Amino acid sequence: MRVVALSGGVGGAKLARGLSRELAPDELVVVCNTGDDFEHLGLTICPDLDSVVYAVAGLADEARGWGRANETWNFLDTLRTMDGESWFQLGDRDLAQHVQRTAWLRAGESLQEVTSRLARAHGIRHAIVPMSNQPVRTQLETANGWLDFQTYFVRERAAPVVQALRYVGAADALATLSWPDASDGLAAFVICPSNPYLSIDPILAVPQWRHRLQQRQAPVVAVSPIVAGDALKGCAAKLLREFDLAVNPATIANHYGDLLDGLVVDQQDAAFAAQIEKLGIAVLVAQTVMRSDADRDILARAVLEFAATIDVRQS
Amino acid sequence: MRVVALSGGVGGAKLARGLSRELAPDELVVVCNTGDDFEHLGLTICPDLDSVVYAVAGLADEARGWGRANETWNFLDTLRTMDGESWFQLGDRDLAQHVQRTAWLRAGESLQEVTSRLARAHGIRHAIVPMSNQPVRTQLETANGWLDFQTYFVRERAAPVVQALRYVGAADALATLSWPDASDGLAAFVICPSNPYLSIDPILAVPQWRHRLQQRQAPVVAVSPIVAGDALKGCAAKLLREFDLAVNPATIANHYGDLLDGLVVDQQDAAFAAQIEKLGIAVLVAQTVMRSDADRDILARAVLEFAATIDVRQS
Repeated sequence: MRVVALSGGVGGAKLARGLSRELAPDELVVVCNTGDDFEHLGLTICPDLDSVVYAVAGLADEARGWGRANETWNFLDTLRTMDGESWFQLGDRDLAQHVQRTAWLRAGESLQEVTSRLARAHGIRHAIVPMSNQPVRTQLETANGWLDFQTYFVRERAAPVVQALRYVGAADALATLSWPDASDGLAAFVICPSNPYLSIDPILAVPQWRHRLQQRQAPVVAVSPIVAGDALKGCAAKLLREFDLAVNPATIANHYGDLLDGLVVDQQDAAFAAQIEKLGIAVLVAQTVMRSDADRDILARAVLEFAATIDVRQS
Repeated sequence: MRVVALSGGVGGAKLARGLSRELAPDELVVVCNTGDDFEHLGLTICPDLDSVVYAVAGLADEARGWGRANETWNFLDTLRTMDGESWFQLGDRDLAQHVQRTAWLRAGESLQEVTSRLARAHGIRHAIVPMSNQPVRTQLETANGWLDFQTYFVRERAAPVVQALRYVGAADALATLSWPDASDGLAAFVICPSNPYLSIDPILAVPQWRHRLQQRQAPVVAVSPIVAGDALKGCAAKLLREFDLAVNPATIANHYGDLLDGLVVDQQDAAFAAQIEKLGIAVLVAQTVMRSDADRDILARAVLEFAATIDVRQS
């Protein structure tokens, strides 16, 4: 079975790791959001791609929730003493990723090629690809105007109220993967438990990606990033509240709408199943909080089995 | 008294530190060789400028002889596991210097401006300037053709026999410092105990620098980098042997020739004084091996007092 997973950072990366442990290297492609990418200190930084690479390679810091395990911070500490731009956390080990990526990009390689080299360098055999080789930049409108994602999320600590979002460059970006090949024998699209606005919508804002999901011959199954009235990580719940939306999985189902065939909701949210099924979206209730590789494996298997029960030709 | 010191890396940086402790901030300009500079992993690396900045700021690693004290190597270790280019040693703290410099250079600042910002960031109040804002690259001819300096010195561990040297770009490079100001009240030029071929000649290959020394109204005083038949650091002795030259301070005196008014030789080399004085170059015998700040202070003071005894209008 071939699976295309769409993923953002932390939560998505955890399910991507589970999927990579359940599926053979030629059975999985993880497509990562690049709307969070940015240039910082002359380096091209791709937070979601790196979170997925680190998670799949088993290098992620479980406790901190982002970046690499066994990390040190002497580069950043030094930069701080030099009054350099130190608002974005760059660990000493993590920095190797950014410096090497930037050097390869400057040498003319595409982001897809560079990502593939970095993933292989970390021993990964599954395909991890950026959603596009063309830059797409997520921006958020606040009372202070449009902010770049990292400015909003890291420098402003996600504090400003968000009025709207846009994905600059998405309309002209081309999706990665040559599609007849990628869809050949496809068993499912999996939308990982990532922020819909900040991690998945940038992917869907690339016309070819939206078109692929609209024209799908395999089911699209998502895992709700909202559990028991909150997001496990990040600002998904905050954005829902600012958009006057209920913080529950039914809102996630509504958000993806016709693009979605099935939604996995947490055990704590079983009560929303009926409401979601009324939208014509199948529901699987499962334990979606992933604290260990065992949790990730069980959820990945459940998602794949759930997808196998959905026949998109009937829907 | 105003002093312009010409310096390479390690040995030169030690005397530069001594001079900075003896002279007020407006009394000293340290002009650094940039012939060793290179681009590596997309970063602009300036080894001699950094050695001088670290030494003057008191951040240098005394035991290792290069780089910063309390350094860690997690960036490099990670790069190595990724099969990245890890032949050049980049410490985690040191990396902040290269990343910040490269970012500022890319933003359009000159190397002189960037160096000045970095020096100030480390609390330095004396002027440390690159010899030129235009790139000059030292290359060495070996049996395998012309090698860039870092390729020869680090990657090839300075093993190939050197047949010739060249300083690419020097003829068209402009010297830093506006000269009427810099020479105003100048008491001495000090050529630090650096490799003549690899650290000082690149500076002198910039026409304006050579011209300034030729037209000097203040004495040029050098400290011999050769002590007791060897160089304390680096490959100066190896180069002298490959050029069939005697490894002693008289060879250094001959090398600078008419540009030199005085040479400080180590106590162990007092026997060469007469030979050097025959060239019309004054000699001071002193302890030139600098193991502590006390040694550096004593030598700096001796060099300045020695320069004050030399009247260039008579020579």
